[in-house]
Amino acid sequence: MKPYQLQELLNARQLLGDHIHRTPLIQSHLLNKMAGCELYFKCENFQKAGAFKMRGAMHKILSLSPEDQQKGVATHSSGNYGAALALGAKLMGIPATIVMPGNAPGVKKNAVESYGAQIVECEPTLEARENTLAGIISKTLATPCHPYNDRAVILGNSTATQEILEEMDVDAIISPVGGGGLISGTALAAHFFSKKTVVYGAEPQGAADAFHSIQLNSIQPSINPKTIADGLRTSLGDQTFPVIRDYVKEIFLVDDYEILFAMKLIWERLKIVVESSSAIVLAAVLKNKQIFQNQKVALILSGGNVDLNAFFNLEISKL
Amino acid sequence: MKPYQLQELLNARQLLGDHIHRTPLIQSHLLNKMAGCELYFKCENFQKAGAFKMRGAMHKILSLSPEDQQKGVATHSSGNYGAALALGAKLMGIPATIVMPGNAPGVKKNAVESYGAQIVECEPTLEARENTLAGIISKTLATPCHPYNDRAVILGNSTATQEILEEMDVDAIISPVGGGGLISGTALAAHFFSKKTVVYGAEPQGAADAFHSIQLNSIQPSINPKTIADGLRTSLGDQTFPVIRDYVKEIFLVDDYEILFAMKLIWERLKIVVESSSAIVLAAVLKNKQIFQNQKVALILSGGNVDLNAFFNLEISKL
Repeated sequence: MKPYQLQELLNARQLLGDHIHRTPLIQSHLLNKMAGCELYFKCENFQKAGAFKMRGAMHKILSLSPEDQQKGVATHSSGNYGAALALGAKLMGIPATIVMPGNAPGVKKNAVESYGAQIVECEPTLEARENTLAGIISKTLATPCHPYNDRAVILGNSTATQEILEEMDVDAIISPVGGGGLISGTALAAHFFSKKTVVYGAEPQGAADAFHSIQLNSIQPSINPKTIADGLRTSLGDQTFPVIRDYVKEIFLVDDYEILFAMKLIWERLKIVVESSSAIVLAAVLKNKQIFQNQKVALILSGGNVDLNAFFNLEISKL
Repeated sequence: MKPYQLQELLNARQLLGDHIHRTPLIQSHLLNKMAGCELYFKCENFQKAGAFKMRGAMHKILSLSPEDQQKGVATHSSGNYGAALALGAKLMGIPATIVMPGNAPGVKKNAVESYGAQIVECEPTLEARENTLAGIISKTLATPCHPYNDRAVILGNSTATQEILEEMDVDAIISPVGGGGLISGTALAAHFFSKKTVVYGAEPQGAADAFHSIQLNSIQPSINPKTIADGLRTSLGDQTFPVIRDYVKEIFLVDDYEILFAMKLIWERLKIVVESSSAIVLAAVLKNKQIFQNQKVALILSGGNVDLNAFFNLEISKL
């Protein structure tokens, strides 16, 4: 991996400019009391397309040459990255194709469709997804955009932490760990923009591949991950593993009960909707309070795309 | 009713000062598109104690003489006002007693208790609540604080709209109508601080007492209200009826399905948690689009205190 330079992070911030939202940092007295430290929640659930993924996706698109932009972008994703790439392409007026497994949830398909991207369905295996994407690329000459294992994506993601550190120099930042794209950007920004900020990851016990990858010092694939945090089931890539290895202090594991407990606290106390993959950062700090006593700790709430059908169907059934 | 003076509203704003949060006005492209106008959501769900009620409760406390403050405050409420008065009293270091029916939801009791107020339980009838409150008042000499039928409360509530109009001169504001305390403050602020802002109310079809009160030009009690919007089941009072009659253009009625549809839209698109009594304002604008075409419309999201147990128990049961 080519070492990162401060200037690359600064450039990413400038290039993204107003293409993304600057999201707020919010607080809760009660949650501070529970955690025994000062918590600052970075609300990427308020980001365009409802997740931090917009930063990396948009930065990737903006990094392409005008010629390549016109040929369009493509990815395979059943999650937030597909929607973010679709919206980024729409805002730039270029075509986007998103490969999704036929069994992807309706809400995810609707989001991508509402942003005007073309959806190509395939079998729900990684092989089918990659083959389908390769077919589209060879036909359209669109640029394949990986959700996280890509330098432009990581640099785009770094802007969330650049914003945090511009507002305040926190002692620690905790970021969720899935494929490692967000935490890599977080760790690089903390490295370049703060003298003291320590970066931690939060990973589900049922998808602890990053935890084991760091322990064994080599990428361990995520095999049969089992967690409610559907955004955190992926494996690290060769672009994210070395950054995490070099710049992240520790990865905390939490179970799904702890994640749901934290998610309820955030909805109840902060009055905001975040997904389980985001709530994991609060779960991690509540489980490791002794480390953060009286510190200023930023928690990155990565996104707010939750399928609310079950909840509202329940409410409607009561009428 | 003594006519209101501009200076009273200005004084309320100044007296409240930093005792309350200035809440944000937020937007959504998609919701604008759906409504055919520019919507500005005033997020009182982010207010202290999770609802606009904090404005009126705090202003009432601050309006008391130091001697009366020391004797404490008391109310009967199973909703947001009890919690707001409890928190206001706590912040001022004075005692508060909240009369609640024995069958009030656990989450409501917990909120009041967490703010350190004394809860006195009684039978779930209005008579029992009033008698119990009267007993407390005569014993403690605490000041009885009505949730809405009180000039100081209405003036406190007016500050939400003062904040809105300081940021922008909207064409219309829609406020929920329960006992009329919020919409009275809204209408007075619009009257004094804008030359053009028209104020509308949104009321549940199953608790349409304000609608009928205006039609018949006399207060019609809310008898057996039936609506999911539990904050909007109360009747108007002699302090709120004349303000609504004189300064509110129209009251829109919506049903519970429309309320839940709007509530889901707000959670999904704005990524914030609001209660059904708040979502009613979006339901009203979506039902009356023709009135607001291309206008700037502020919607007051009155609170975010939702019982999330059912939703999270469902999620936990899936683990």
